[in-house]
Amino acid sequence: MAIWYKETQNDDDIILSSRIRLARNLKNYPFITKLNDEGREKIVKEIKKSVMSSNSVLKDMFEYTDITKTSPLERHLLKEERLISEDMVETKGNAGLLVDKDKNVSIMICEEDHIRLQCIYPGLNLEKAYDMADKIDNVIEETVDYAFSPQYGYLTACPTNVGTGLRASVMVHIPAINICGRMKGLADMLSKLGLTVRGLFGEGSEADGYLYQISNQITLGVSENEIIDKLKNAVESIVTMEKTLRQELKDNNLVAISDRVWRSYGTLKYAQSISGKEAKQCLSDCLLGKNMGIINTVDNINLKELMVLSEPAHISKAFGKDLKPEERDVKRAEFIRSII
Amino acid sequence: MAIWYKETQNDDDIILSSRIRLARNLKNYPFITKLNDEGREKIVKEIKKSVMSSNSVLKDMFEYTDITKTSPLERHLLKEERLISEDMVETKGNAGLLVDKDKNVSIMICEEDHIRLQCIYPGLNLEKAYDMADKIDNVIEETVDYAFSPQYGYLTACPTNVGTGLRASVMVHIPAINICGRMKGLADMLSKLGLTVRGLFGEGSEADGYLYQISNQITLGVSENEIIDKLKNAVESIVTMEKTLRQELKDNNLVAISDRVWRSYGTLKYAQSISGKEAKQCLSDCLLGKNMGIINTVDNINLKELMVLSEPAHISKAFGKDLKPEERDVKRAEFIRSII
Repeated sequence: MAIWYKETQNDDDIILSSRIRLARNLKNYPFITKLNDEGREKIVKEIKKSVMSSNSVLKDMFEYTDITKTSPLERHLLKEERLISEDMVETKGNAGLLVDKDKNVSIMICEEDHIRLQCIYPGLNLEKAYDMADKIDNVIEETVDYAFSPQYGYLTACPTNVGTGLRASVMVHIPAINICGRMKGLADMLSKLGLTVRGLFGEGSEADGYLYQISNQITLGVSENEIIDKLKNAVESIVTMEKTLRQELKDNNLVAISDRVWRSYGTLKYAQSISGKEAKQCLSDCLLGKNMGIINTVDNINLKELMVLSEPAHISKAFGKDLKPEERDVKRAEFIRSII
Repeated sequence: MAIWYKETQNDDDIILSSRIRLARNLKNYPFITKLNDEGREKIVKEIKKSVMSSNSVLKDMFEYTDITKTSPLERHLLKEERLISEDMVETKGNAGLLVDKDKNVSIMICEEDHIRLQCIYPGLNLEKAYDMADKIDNVIEETVDYAFSPQYGYLTACPTNVGTGLRASVMVHIPAINICGRMKGLADMLSKLGLTVRGLFGEGSEADGYLYQISNQITLGVSENEIIDKLKNAVESIVTMEKTLRQELKDNNLVAISDRVWRSYGTLKYAQSISGKEAKQCLSDCLLGKNMGIINTVDNINLKELMVLSEPAHISKAFGKDLKPEERDVKRAEFIRSII
């Protein structure tokens, strides 16, 4: 299956991707915060071997990257594709990364936990992502001793992950809920269900372009299936809410919403300098307009992909060098104009 | 000569038009504030006859409009073409208007003074405008007794107009002076010269689209030529200042100024609703960009004319009815998109 932002068949722009993350730690080592660099090196080797050795059924599936040897630009590129976390961008110690060829699965070694295994698919595909994560988890467990308590489940560096070690999350694009001032109500509702809403890059990050991650808060005392079912039901309600509000906007505020969409299109088409935040916002408006049948000039453009390609590191890479923010804004505008 | 906003040959977008206005009153009638409707009617008849009777050399030049019989929309149309003042739009009493076929000359009868004679030409043409105003003034004076004091000169309803009764003004488009934060300094400098800077529609009006009127404050104790020379010199300094600052913007802030110009173009091209103020601002940016060689997609568009045609009454007229403001903003956007 294609990487989450490459998907173009699914016409629905509300659910962009589904992600399952498992946190695992090795029994015979302290947690990362108590671990020296030698210990980290050993763990990286052990996990890498477990996945890539000739005995492993996964051996041809993954490519390994030694994070320690990557440049800041390379790390940011990985982060913008959602293959590593902000924490891993900043890490100073030994760390490794395994990514499959389709970029659906990534295994961060020595992030907050020894292992952070993630599967990400386009659309609403939580079960599929969980099945894949579970399969890989089982393969690793064949050769690696996990820190596991019969009473609590998997042990993790942060107590909030103890138990299943599972975080299930869905990335949603919900402009109408925002425009209609319903975000606060949504967050309250999710909180009551033990779910949470965050920006695109997780905890503390801003929600540019009306992109949010909905995920479970609780990992202890519930089964994996319960977590996934609850999240799936909540996301389905969010989709219904977003669709209803879009219809209301269309019925009652068509001029205002069309004006917003077309102005954003004009900005993307003609700006000579544009920040990542504004670009994402304008692309989000166009995505909304495309889905609402307001704008047809972006029919053949993958706006989701363009959002990723407009991120800072992707722009720097496309223009072959590290750019200062103001140069990057000019190059971003140039790049977007060449597509739109 | 074409009406001020139709001029397209003059490439310079800084000086849009030159205007001379003479205030005159009839000797045998009280000023407007003390005049009843019967008196106003007599004055309208007398002036109309003086200009349009078979003996007058001006008889084939003017068309007469009975302002009393005009609709609010018609009055606003005349105001937006700068043929009548805001005061005359609001007038409740008898009033008349004489306009020549090229719309360079207008004679308001029973505005603040009995006669307000105005000549307006494109570009910097103060002498020419004064010559025309003086010629017409002389013709009227052949048959009409003006209120004139050998000591003070022409007497007027407001003491600030006593003397020459002359207001000379030049409409300038000075975005760079604005963008560079030099308006305050300019206003102070002009004030010391006995000149003043006002918005497009005179006293108290806002300066949308960086359009300003520079005019004389003093009418008493100076000759007509002195007033015109002083204004002309000041305007020439303003043009130099504006050009210098445009060059500085080009040298030091080309990205920012190009970004501004092209974004405004995008707004005009795609907005589905736009206020008169924003439209004028965006048209002003495009006019600046055209003159600075930043944008070439508006080369064949008369942006000055488009500014007038985008004014509220012109939009209402073009769409054949009185529109509510929000409907007008939609129609304005539609109209501008059809041109840009």
